[in-house]
Amino acid sequence: MTFTTETWQSKAAAKKAAILASIPEEWRLSPSQLKLAEGVRDITGPFIQQFLDHDTIAITSLDSVPIVEAIKSGKLSAVEVTKAFCKTAAIAHQINPCILEIFFDKALARAQELDDYQAKHGRTMGPLHGLPVSLKDQFHVKGVDTSMAYVGWIGGNCGVFDDGLVHKIESQITGEFLSVGAVLYCKTSLPQTVFFGETVNHILGTTYNPHNRNLSCGGSSGGEAVLHALRGSTLGVGTDIGGSVRIPAGFCGTFSLKPTPERLSYKDCANTAPGQYTCRSTIGLMGTSLDGVDLGLRALLSTQPWIKDPAVVPIPYRQDIYDAYLARGSAAGAKPLKIGVVWNDGMVEPHPPVQRGLKLLAEAVKNAGHKIVDWNPPSVKEGCDIHRRMLLSDGLYDIHQQLARSGEPLVPSLTEELKQREPRPLLEVHDLTLKGLAYEIKYSDYWNSTADDDGQVVDAVIMPVAASAAVVPGQYYHIEYTRVANALNYSSVVIPVTKADKSVDTADKTYQPIDELDRKNWEAYDPEIYDGAPVGLQIMGRKYEEEKVLAIAKVVYAALLEEKKGVKAAL
Amino acid sequence: MTFTTETWQSKAAAKKAAILASIPEEWRLSPSQLKLAEGVRDITGPFIQQFLDHDTIAITSLDSVPIVEAIKSGKLSAVEVTKAFCKTAAIAHQINPCILEIFFDKALARAQELDDYQAKHGRTMGPLHGLPVSLKDQFHVKGVDTSMAYVGWIGGNCGVFDDGLVHKIESQITGEFLSVGAVLYCKTSLPQTVFFGETVNHILGTTYNPHNRNLSCGGSSGGEAVLHALRGSTLGVGTDIGGSVRIPAGFCGTFSLKPTPERLSYKDCANTAPGQYTCRSTIGLMGTSLDGVDLGLRALLSTQPWIKDPAVVPIPYRQDIYDAYLARGSAAGAKPLKIGVVWNDGMVEPHPPVQRGLKLLAEAVKNAGHKIVDWNPPSVKEGCDIHRRMLLSDGLYDIHQQLARSGEPLVPSLTEELKQREPRPLLEVHDLTLKGLAYEIKYSDYWNSTADDDGQVVDAVIMPVAASAAVVPGQYYHIEYTRVANALNYSSVVIPVTKADKSVDTADKTYQPIDELDRKNWEAYDPEIYDGAPVGLQIMGRKYEEEKVLAIAKVVYAALLEEKKGVKAAL
Repeated sequence: MTFTTETWQSKAAAKKAAILASIPEEWRLSPSQLKLAEGVRDITGPFIQQFLDHDTIAITSLDSVPIVEAIKSGKLSAVEVTKAFCKTAAIAHQINPCILEIFFDKALARAQELDDYQAKHGRTMGPLHGLPVSLKDQFHVKGVDTSMAYVGWIGGNCGVFDDGLVHKIESQITGEFLSVGAVLYCKTSLPQTVFFGETVNHILGTTYNPHNRNLSCGGSSGGEAVLHALRGSTLGVGTDIGGSVRIPAGFCGTFSLKPTPERLSYKDCANTAPGQYTCRSTIGLMGTSLDGVDLGLRALLSTQPWIKDPAVVPIPYRQDIYDAYLARGSAAGAKPLKIGVVWNDGMVEPHPPVQRGLKLLAEAVKNAGHKIVDWNPPSVKEGCDIHRRMLLSDGLYDIHQQLARSGEPLVPSLTEELKQREPRPLLEVHDLTLKGLAYEIKYSDYWNSTADDDGQVVDAVIMPVAASAAVVPGQYYHIEYTRVANALNYSSVVIPVTKADKSVDTADKTYQPIDELDRKNWEAYDPEIYDGAPVGLQIMGRKYEEEKVLAIAKVVYAALLEEKKGVKAAL
Repeated sequence: MTFTTETWQSKAAAKKAAILASIPEEWRLSPSQLKLAEGVRDITGPFIQQFLDHDTIAITSLDSVPIVEAIKSGKLSAVEVTKAFCKTAAIAHQINPCILEIFFDKALARAQELDDYQAKHGRTMGPLHGLPVSLKDQFHVKGVDTSMAYVGWIGGNCGVFDDGLVHKIESQITGEFLSVGAVLYCKTSLPQTVFFGETVNHILGTTYNPHNRNLSCGGSSGGEAVLHALRGSTLGVGTDIGGSVRIPAGFCGTFSLKPTPERLSYKDCANTAPGQYTCRSTIGLMGTSLDGVDLGLRALLSTQPWIKDPAVVPIPYRQDIYDAYLARGSAAGAKPLKIGVVWNDGMVEPHPPVQRGLKLLAEAVKNAGHKIVDWNPPSVKEGCDIHRRMLLSDGLYDIHQQLARSGEPLVPSLTEELKQREPRPLLEVHDLTLKGLAYEIKYSDYWNSTADDDGQVVDAVIMPVAASAAVVPGQYYHIEYTRVANALNYSSVVIPVTKADKSVDTADKTYQPIDELDRKNWEAYDPEIYDGAPVGLQIMGRKYEEEKVLAIAKVVYAALLEEKKGVKAAL
């Protein structure tokens, strides 16, 4: 390496400027336009649309499935669609920084190839033909940087500056997306270290909640969810080791699926502390619709990822399971679903908007003819404590090694939490491993114990994404509502349910918190500040129940829309 | 605990005596009969049959599938079958100690219940109805001890003397066997620590090879294979973390399947260092026939083990895969299989009997119309070194803790190899984990690279079980021929191929060993000593390819039998 006077600050600033510079001139906002955005609480919908033309809005208002159908039928070209999403993503990033890599030129060239392919062969390349797919900045795309928000990684390959590697690696899942016809065009922001439920780093600063600038967009796959909420993408891919595809979807009012870790390929992706392989990070799908997320799962599994990645379990998309559960919502005489509800995880009481969301969804499901039961699993604290200790077992060695590459410090919110310490001794880790396995069994035993006389156990569990509807930056005290599914390696889908509403979600001063943590969270609720924040909820299934939990989410979400229609009609 | 003057030696001797005492009087051999056995090289077939009556021999000569069919059709009762196997097992144990727990009374009572059930309901209880199934002494059966050959575990529960636990735990797989109608009657011997390819412990001493008393029966599931070779069981279950269901099957001339670890339930089983969960031990099936092993897999998977054990992947028995590969051996116009052959693993040259076995099997497969190609994977040494270091990463802490419970020392063969040391630092283990994953990918890439022009990759790989046909006790220098499948989490089936024959398998003094290890192994071959030792070979598939590899083993084994018929006819 040559001697340089660059500081980590200057490197970060240069990267930020380079990202903006990669946006075509005609899509850049003027200083006065940018100023407009600063004063606005909710930048979704009409606000961002003022910077977009009619044709663009018409395209980006479509979800993933209608888009691929429109391209397949020739109603739209891949180039038209790609241009619309590139433009929208460019505007989105300018009013709320959420993108770490922009490669629109590649995308448009690729879209043209796809259009040519379709014209020549009279068929599409695969189930995602022409669909723009955004990627969290952990996935390598050939010719494109992956900084994972580390200043020390800019221009290298996970911090290594080897010409044979830099910009030459392609994550397996990237190749899978390309092989089924996707158009890749940008990579989205995430928090420094990836171990954070908000999105803040030294390159882009803080990414806000697009529905409410007072709040965080969530993390770690925060850039993805922001882009979905602003319609700059309909389908993307993130990762989840403590809630990272579910938290941002929940906070931004979008959809996501966290599968069981071994279902999709993590091969050749950047990651934090990948050698800690006991509590694994999961590839997850995020998007603007359940059908889109489902389409993504089908498309990826259609490539048989296990052939190239031996870590993936060879379970193809199970249409029979999906159909069977979908029928439970619509088929005449179908057996009702039995749905558990987590009202409180035994540690932290959800804020009023989340409580109302739970009630609303439970009511909707009940009114659709299904059974609702309370869910009282073994101590969630126990499972989450094991998981947290395992996650931090390397003493944050890996994170501090990456930080040291540029000299950047931890962002302030993480300074205490992720301070470097001694790695845990191996025998303690072995003991923790056994405790984790025992916890999985204990929880599974509880699940089995919910059997009725006719043998029906709970089909899925509705639970909060977090104890708050999004969160005030720096006040995310408790991620256990999502972490538990990581401790269990369960599958979970997030759907948007309602929005915080100061007129109904009043602060309750009479609540008696059970401890200091519960108190801190409860007192953090301010109806004025949270007003308008999305309330997403999880539909959690067991291990390898991705198709089931997607189908149940469809049934539950349809019931919610019916319920809302009914409420409106009654007014 | 009360003060006791018992030594570990006296406890071990008392246990040994108690095992013998649990054999009914009428099945005990006289001192002169026992003397007879001591002088005999091969105690299988005619030798053991001299101690058995005609009816017993008629029953125990049947394999698992004909037995369950005979019971189902009413030709045999479960009680008749159980008596025959109990008696044969009792004799087998007396002429070659291979059983650590005998519970024939329970077995006969259970068999009677099964007969009553069938009489009452007109159907069987499940696919193993009435079949005696033997278990390696790692599986808990209610009311029965599990010492796992540790003196300090006798009478306790994995060394813990808690009345609430002792003899009260049932391994999940035990319950699965019972739920599909199996009769459990004995638990078989294994080496002290379970980490050894021979079967020797302080309770029973050494278990010899039933075909050749000069040699070891292999390990760690040695008692199982001995019982199968002596027809005291047709189906049993063992475990494999370095070859433990394959080595003894190979050495004793029987069959076994090592699946991918997450395919069958390990829940509530005793094990060595279970907290080391990176390189996992696998439940494996062992028996006297391929159809029996396949029946066992089908029966266990029919219980949906993943419902009670979240560590099991929910992949039901895939009949379509089994049928498709079986058809490759027989269907007219079927596409030939493409089979790789490992002639040498790059470290140790197999002894002449094993070399001849490989040639014989390759020739048979070729003559049956299939393709044979050389198999030259990435360095097997690399993968095996990673695996060995991971296995020993706790510094043998767990093993020495168990030994300390009674004060017994390591058996002499293990004194050096398993000496206690410092546990490996966690960061080194994380690094090793990544190296292991990278090795799996490297090997998988090689497998994918074997694609022909028409895309056909190698379907399975024929390889030695060991570099020798069984082994002289204390001379098992190299277990890497089996270990590699553990490093890869691959599925592998063992079939018996031939026997060492001093008249053709002469020692080759001209071979130039590549190093000291290779020399030691090569020089250990003595045609006289090894004469009559079984040569088993592995048919190895990739992860989760259990049905495929069983079907291919059936095709390959049928080809071998055809080849032998042809050779005989030509003589």
